[in-house]
Amino acid sequence: MAIENGDFVKIEFTGKVEETGDVFDTTNQDVAEEAGIYNKEKNYGPIPIVVGGKHLLPAIDEAVLGMEVGDNKKVTVDPENGFGHRDSSLVQLIPMKEFKKQGMTPYPGMKITAEGQTGKILTVNGGRVKVDFNHELAGKTLDYDLTISEVIDDDTEKVKSMINLHYAYPNMDLDKTEVEFDEDTIKIKLDEITHFDQKSYMDITFARYRISKDLYENMPYDKVQFVDEFEKRAEEESEETEENTESEE
Amino acid sequence: MAIENGDFVKIEFTGKVEETGDVFDTTNQDVAEEAGIYNKEKNYGPIPIVVGGKHLLPAIDEAVLGMEVGDNKKVTVDPENGFGHRDSSLVQLIPMKEFKKQGMTPYPGMKITAEGQTGKILTVNGGRVKVDFNHELAGKTLDYDLTISEVIDDDTEKVKSMINLHYAYPNMDLDKTEVEFDEDTIKIKLDEITHFDQKSYMDITFARYRISKDLYENMPYDKVQFVDEFEKRAEEESEETEENTESEE
Repeated sequence: MAIENGDFVKIEFTGKVEETGDVFDTTNQDVAEEAGIYNKEKNYGPIPIVVGGKHLLPAIDEAVLGMEVGDNKKVTVDPENGFGHRDSSLVQLIPMKEFKKQGMTPYPGMKITAEGQTGKILTVNGGRVKVDFNHELAGKTLDYDLTISEVIDDDTEKVKSMINLHYAYPNMDLDKTEVEFDEDTIKIKLDEITHFDQKSYMDITFARYRISKDLYENMPYDKVQFVDEFEKRAEEESEETEENTESEE
Repeated sequence: MAIENGDFVKIEFTGKVEETGDVFDTTNQDVAEEAGIYNKEKNYGPIPIVVGGKHLLPAIDEAVLGMEVGDNKKVTVDPENGFGHRDSSLVQLIPMKEFKKQGMTPYPGMKITAEGQTGKILTVNGGRVKVDFNHELAGKTLDYDLTISEVIDDDTEKVKSMINLHYAYPNMDLDKTEVEFDEDTIKIKLDEITHFDQKSYMDITFARYRISKDLYENMPYDKVQFVDEFEKRAEEESEETEENTESEE
C-alpha cells in the first residue's frame, strides 16, 4: 500500500553532503562509526515517524509519499528545502578580547555558543576572530538515501512508536507499557521504571505533549491520558511500619 | 462524633518545650512570628492529617482519639514518646583542623551536617570543637496545645486534603483539581499548572505515592491514579505550524 500523510512508518536513512560525500546523519550504526560521527547517546536503527508530521525535513516527508515497505529511494534536497542558504551577515568578526574575558583561547574549528546561536570559528588573525553562525548545513545540497523498513498498522504499536520517538529513558521497556483505547481517549501507562526519571516534571510534560499531539492529530482519538497508578498491595493492609515520624516538617 | 483512627481531620497545634516554654512548632502564623520561628516557605493554618497515619507524633494521634470538632486539649509528651532521650555518645569532639579543611570557622550555636546527621556546635576550645548530634528536642518534655478545626467527611475533600499535605506547588489551585471515584479506583487530575513543576519526576512520584498510600489505606478504594490529559483543541485540526524542523536530533 502506497504511503500517505498520517501513516506511521519506520524509516532508515543516511544523509550526505553532495559536494563532499560527508555523512552528516544516519540511522545506521555501522555507517555512523565509519563516518566518525557515532554518538553513543543515540539509538540507531529504523526510526518511527508520522509521515507529514515534520519530524524530519519536509522534503523527506514528501519523498516518502507513495513509497511502499522495502522501497529504497535517493532524494536530493537543495538548500531552499534543506537548511537554507548561507547568510554572509552571519559571519562575524569578534574582538579577541571578548574571548579573553571569558578565559577562552579560540582556534579554527572551535565551536562556540553566543546568545543561543552556535557558531564555528573560521580564522584567528591577531586581534580578530572570524566566526560563522550559519547552520553547518546551510548552503549545502543534501543527498538522502531512504528505505521504508515498516508501515505500522496496529494502533498500540502506533502509540508505542511515538513514545519511542519522543521519550527516552534508560531501561524503559515498551513491552511493559500498557495502551488502552476508550471511546475518544488513548490511555497510556508507561513502564513503572519511568516514574523514577530524574528529569524535571516539566520536561516530561513536554515529551508527553509531543507524543499526544502526534497521536490525536493522526489517529481517530481526541484525548491522550498518561496514567500513573499506585495500588494497595495485600500485605500493606495490616503492615506495621517502622517509619520515623516527627511533628516538624 | 468522636474522632477515630482513619478519620481525616484538620488540626491546629502549638508545641512548646515544657522546661523553657519555647515554641518549637506551630500551625499559627502569629504565634510563629512572635516566637521568632516564622518560615515563609511554610503554609500556616490548620493542617490536614489522617488520624493514626503517623503524620505527627504517635502521641498526638492518640490524643486526638475521642475528641470532637472544636475541642481543645493540652497534651504533655515525655521524651520516650517524643524525640527520645539524649544520648551522650552523640556529643562528639571534632578536631578544629577538620573544619579548617572545609574552610569553615566554627562558632557556638552553628549548625553543621556530617554524614547526613545534623549537629549543633556547643563549644569551641582551642583545637577542639564540641558538637551535639542529638535531635534538638531529645530529652525534652513537650507541651502541645491541640484544637480540632474540622472533621472532613466528603470523599473529594479527603483526597484534596492529602494532596495539600504531601504536595506543594506554588499557585496550584485545588479547585482546579478533578477527583473521580470509579469502582475501586480514585482518579486524580491535578491542576494543569502542576505539569510545569521543575522538580524531578522521581520527587513527584514520591509525593504521589504518599498521597496514594494515605488514601487507599483509609478509604474503601484499592487504587489511586494520577491522570495527565492532553486534548486536541478544535483549532489545532487544520493549524499550519511554522515549526522549524531538522533531520538532526
